[in-house]
Amino acid sequence: MPTAIVLLSGGLDSATVLAIAQRDGFDCLALSFRYGQTHVAEVQAAQLIAESAGVQRHVIVDIDLRVFGGSALTSDTRIPKDRSDAEMSAGIPITYVPARNTIFLSYALAFAEVSGAQTIFIGVNAVDYSGYPDCRPEFVAAFESVANLATKAAVEDGRRISIDAPLMELSKGETVRLGTDLGVDYGQTVSCYDADEVGQACGACDSCVLRRRGFEDAGLADPTRYRLTA
Amino acid sequence: MPTAIVLLSGGLDSATVLAIAQRDGFDCLALSFRYGQTHVAEVQAAQLIAESAGVQRHVIVDIDLRVFGGSALTSDTRIPKDRSDAEMSAGIPITYVPARNTIFLSYALAFAEVSGAQTIFIGVNAVDYSGYPDCRPEFVAAFESVANLATKAAVEDGRRISIDAPLMELSKGETVRLGTDLGVDYGQTVSCYDADEVGQACGACDSCVLRRRGFEDAGLADPTRYRLTA
Repeated sequence: MPTAIVLLSGGLDSATVLAIAQRDGFDCLALSFRYGQTHVAEVQAAQLIAESAGVQRHVIVDIDLRVFGGSALTSDTRIPKDRSDAEMSAGIPITYVPARNTIFLSYALAFAEVSGAQTIFIGVNAVDYSGYPDCRPEFVAAFESVANLATKAAVEDGRRISIDAPLMELSKGETVRLGTDLGVDYGQTVSCYDADEVGQACGACDSCVLRRRGFEDAGLADPTRYRLTA
Repeated sequence: MPTAIVLLSGGLDSATVLAIAQRDGFDCLALSFRYGQTHVAEVQAAQLIAESAGVQRHVIVDIDLRVFGGSALTSDTRIPKDRSDAEMSAGIPITYVPARNTIFLSYALAFAEVSGAQTIFIGVNAVDYSGYPDCRPEFVAAFESVANLATKAAVEDGRRISIDAPLMELSKGETVRLGTDLGVDYGQTVSCYDADEVGQACGACDSCVLRRRGFEDAGLADPTRYRLTA
């Protein structure tokens, strides 16, 4: 059974990716980060998802991206709410965290090398709006080149490492439908940029809006726990 | 004055790179890591070097690579000593830390993006023996491609990021001679894989052997503080 590293944020996408990787016969190790994000409930969700999926090893790495600043997700900047489609698609949002996926994949590469994994799964997506440059297929391909030049595994042992982004071409609705078919319990996942400490979603940030629309498009009940707002 | 991020380990090479970057007119920000290495004196050396060079901002990031294991530099494994040239050139040494330079460059990329730097300096070298796959020019070039696809700076603002490895083609002797010309105080630097808490070198690990040879080849006095051994 081949081993894979699955980047598991605790959100909807990565929970789906874990289910896909397991369906495809991988023994999955999960990797999550506490990176100074304001929505810590995501990491708790990742733990719950990993446990439910029977993941044998789930490593949570503390990395403090606040040391550099530069993102609303790692500072006290207000998360934008109730943006229109036009606003959401106008450039890279302030929730972008500099070099985040590059850093996450670098750690995944170290984990892959040490554990003998040849595949790294990441839940990035280029179809539904995100506006993050490090979610595009060309970024993933470039990082795969780095992975195969950087590691002892690839250079000395001829172990080729691949970066698999199975949601890249799926809409949020398609992702939700696929994950539901695979038995993902989306009630465990937290996508909200502004979730409270128990993981209840605001319902109004970009991530909540896209997620809600995903369930609507899939014709499925939305199991998200929204908090009551004034 | 353009801004650059300089990866500063506290060793001989990165101290030289900092001097080169300053000579070339860059306003340098320094970036170091506490990554669970057993030779913590390197980080203290980095602080001293950055101060001496008048670096205005020196960020030290705590990253715990021990969480994955897999290297003598981040574990209690004995550092190999007094190896012959043949032994040193026979493959990747156990002091290799999985994906280390990929992780370091990823953080440097985040720092560059936030600070507006367009250049990242790294002291890797492909000439003298090191055997690390992530010290080769093709690795550096591949990471540069990632950098220019991953960031908001590159994608939205058209700010191209380059990774500069000015020691890539230099022998250790050439590096030492160049750094001496630029006023680097190598007495401040710590290269030893097994330095004691005050930064005294063992004189026998691969890094000490290569460093000592560098000063010999350059015809310069070796200012390294070696500890007395039984």
